[in-house]
Amino acid sequence: MSSSLLSLDFFRDSYEPRIAQLKRERENGMKVVGTFCLYVPDEIIFAAGADRIVLCGGRTDTIPVAEQSLPRNICPLIKSSFGAVVDACCGGDLSCAHVPLVDVAVAEATCDGKKKMYEVLSDYVPTYVLDLPQKPGSPEALEYFLSELRKFAVFMEGLTGHAVTTDALKREIRSANETKRLLHRLFELRMRDPPPIGGSEVLRVMQKQFFLAPDQFRQGVGRLCDELEQVAPAARTGPRIMISGCPMAAGNTKVPDSIEQKGGVIVVEESCTGTRSFWDLVDEEADPWTALAERYLEIPCACMTPNDERIARIVDLAKRYDVRGVVYYTLQFCHAYNIERLRVQQALKREKIPMLAIESDYGDADVEQIGIRIDAFLEMIA
Amino acid sequence: MSSSLLSLDFFRDSYEPRIAQLKRERENGMKVVGTFCLYVPDEIIFAAGADRIVLCGGRTDTIPVAEQSLPRNICPLIKSSFGAVVDACCGGDLSCAHVPLVDVAVAEATCDGKKKMYEVLSDYVPTYVLDLPQKPGSPEALEYFLSELRKFAVFMEGLTGHAVTTDALKREIRSANETKRLLHRLFELRMRDPPPIGGSEVLRVMQKQFFLAPDQFRQGVGRLCDELEQVAPAARTGPRIMISGCPMAAGNTKVPDSIEQKGGVIVVEESCTGTRSFWDLVDEEADPWTALAERYLEIPCACMTPNDERIARIVDLAKRYDVRGVVYYTLQFCHAYNIERLRVQQALKREKIPMLAIESDYGDADVEQIGIRIDAFLEMIA
Repeated sequence: MSSSLLSLDFFRDSYEPRIAQLKRERENGMKVVGTFCLYVPDEIIFAAGADRIVLCGGRTDTIPVAEQSLPRNICPLIKSSFGAVVDACCGGDLSCAHVPLVDVAVAEATCDGKKKMYEVLSDYVPTYVLDLPQKPGSPEALEYFLSELRKFAVFMEGLTGHAVTTDALKREIRSANETKRLLHRLFELRMRDPPPIGGSEVLRVMQKQFFLAPDQFRQGVGRLCDELEQVAPAARTGPRIMISGCPMAAGNTKVPDSIEQKGGVIVVEESCTGTRSFWDLVDEEADPWTALAERYLEIPCACMTPNDERIARIVDLAKRYDVRGVVYYTLQFCHAYNIERLRVQQALKREKIPMLAIESDYGDADVEQIGIRIDAFLEMIA
Repeated sequence: MSSSLLSLDFFRDSYEPRIAQLKRERENGMKVVGTFCLYVPDEIIFAAGADRIVLCGGRTDTIPVAEQSLPRNICPLIKSSFGAVVDACCGGDLSCAHVPLVDVAVAEATCDGKKKMYEVLSDYVPTYVLDLPQKPGSPEALEYFLSELRKFAVFMEGLTGHAVTTDALKREIRSANETKRLLHRLFELRMRDPPPIGGSEVLRVMQKQFFLAPDQFRQGVGRLCDELEQVAPAARTGPRIMISGCPMAAGNTKVPDSIEQKGGVIVVEESCTGTRSFWDLVDEEADPWTALAERYLEIPCACMTPNDERIARIVDLAKRYDVRGVVYYTLQFCHAYNIERLRVQQALKREKIPMLAIESDYGDADVEQIGIRIDAFLEMIA
C-alpha cells in the first residue's frame, strides 16, 4: 500500500545526507562506532563523543561473500552483515557505504551465531564485544552487566579521548528517552482503527533509528506524527495483525510487504525493529549506570532465559492493539526465536489469538509460498 | 575393530547395575540430579550428598517426539535429550530409564538451542539453570560465575538437606581430580604407536563418565589402563586421527565407527566426550569455590568467546598425539562449533595438518556418504 505521507520523504531521502555527515565528522576527528544490536547502549557511545551507525544487514547480495567463511545454515542477518563488511574491506561494491565509516564495530554476546561471527569479523574490522548475562533476573547478573558497561565506557573513552561523565550520560539518557517517547507517540497513533499508517512504512522508519543521528531521527518522527494527526488515513479494512519475532534489518521487508499486499493491516511489531527498541525508558532519576544496566537487561530478547517478559508483552500488545492475528517471524536457523515460538503459541492460544509462523531467509525463493500462507491465514481470521 | 579387552566388559554391562543402584538410592531418600553438560560441576552435586546421571541423548528414536514441540532444524542432541524426557514423562517406552530417576534436571546457559530447550523441558521435569558468562576471561566474569556456583550450592542444599561444606567440596574436588588423572593415564597410553585401544572403544568408555558413580568409573578405567599396559595392542596401521568438535552422547558413535571401519586410527578426541572433560584439573590448594569457578570457565567450549584456548589446544593435541589428520565433527545446526570451524581450519593449515569437516545428525541417511568422504580423506593423508 503506497503512501502519500509527505513526511516519509525525509526518511526515504536520508541515506546520502547521513553518509556525507559521517564523512565530515570523521574528517573532523570524530570517531564512529558500528553496532548490530539493541543491547549496545547508544547512550555510552554518544556520551563519549562518538557517532554510531548500524551494521546489521538485510540484503541478500552480500551473503555469498559471507558463505566463503561462514556455514550456509546460519541466520541470514549474520551472513548479510558479515558479508557487507568483508566485501567492503576487500574493495567490493556490493556493500553499503557504512563499513568504511566506522572506527570500530561494537558487538555483543547475544546468540551463538552472532557471537562467533564477531570473532571472524575482527579479522576485518576492529571489534569490541560486550558480554551479557543470559539469565538477567538476578542482582549478580545486573552487577556483571554493570561492570561490562563500565568497561565499555573506558574503551570508548580510549577511542575518543573524551571522558564519559555522569552529566554526559544523563544527557544522553534523556535524549534517548525523548526518542523513545516519540516512538510511543507514533505507535499510539497505530492503535486507531483504521491506523493512519501502514506497517511496512513504519518498519522503513524504524530501520533508520540506528542509522540516523538521534536528533535527525526525532525530527523525522515528530513530523511524521504531526502529519498522521492531521491527515485522513487511507482506508485499511483488513484484519489487524501484529508481527512478533526477529528484527528486520534494512533491505528485509519481505514479510510485512506480503502481509499488506494480501490485505492485512499491520498495527504493531514486537521485535528489535519494533517495540523492543523503545518500549522501556531508562530511569532518569536513578544512578545513570544502574538505570542503563537495568533497562538494557529488560530487553525481552529470546537469547535470554527465561524470557517470560516477552510472552507477557506479546499478549499485552495483542490486546492493546486489538489484533486479529499474530505473524511470528523468524530468521532462518534462529534457534532462540524458533524454540521460543512454542511458548508464544501457547500463550496466544490461551487468549484465542491465532498465530502464523514464518521462518525465512533474505532470498526470493519462498516469496510466493509465504504469500499463499499469509493469504490463507488472513482468510481464516477475517 | 572389535576388541578382546576384558576390562571393557564392565562398561558394556554397567547399565542395569547402575540403574538398580540409583533406584535403591532413591528408595533410601537420596536425591538424583540429571545433567547435560560439562559446565555443571559434579563436585557441588556430590558435596551436597546427591548422585547424578547424564541426560544427554545420542539416540535418534526419541527425536520425532521432540519435533512435536521443538523446531526440526536444531541440533539432534538437544532434540534427542528433550524427546527422551518427554517420552518418559508421557509413559512412552522409547526412552532410557534415566528420566524417572532424577529429582531435578540441572542445566546451563550454554548454546541457544539448549538454553531455550530447557525452558520447555521445565514443563516436564523440575529444571534448574546455571548461568555462564560468555566472555569468561575477566575477573568480573569469574565473580559472576562464582555467584552462580554459590547459588547452585544453596539450591542443592535445599534439595538434599545437606550443607555443601568446604571440606565436602574439597573432598569432591580431590575425587574428581583423581578421575581426571586416571583419564590422563588412559589417554597417555593412546599416544603409543600403535595405540593399544581404538577410539570407538574409548568413546564408549567416556560416555559412561557421567552415567556411572565416580568410584565405579574410576575402578573401570583403572582396570582398563592396567590391562592396556599388559596386553599386546592389536595391529593398527592406518593414519592417526584426532576427532575435534561436538560431544558424542551415548548412542552416537557413527563417525568414529566409520573412521575405524575405513582403517583410520583414532588416537584422541578434543570434545566434551574427550579431553575437554578431564584435561584441566581443579587446583586442590586454592579456595575450593574460586578454584572450581576458574577450572570450569577454562573449558574450551565454542559457546564461549573468544575461544583461543581451544584452537591452541587442538594444535597442541595434534602434535602430542602425532596425528596425520583431524576430523572436525559437528552436530547439525550447531552454530558455535560450525562457525568456529574456520578458526580451527586456519590454525591446522598453518601446521600443515589436513582437516575433514563432517556435520551430521543422529540418523542413518548419511552413513554411506560420510564413509565415502572419510575414505577419501584417509587415502589423501595415508
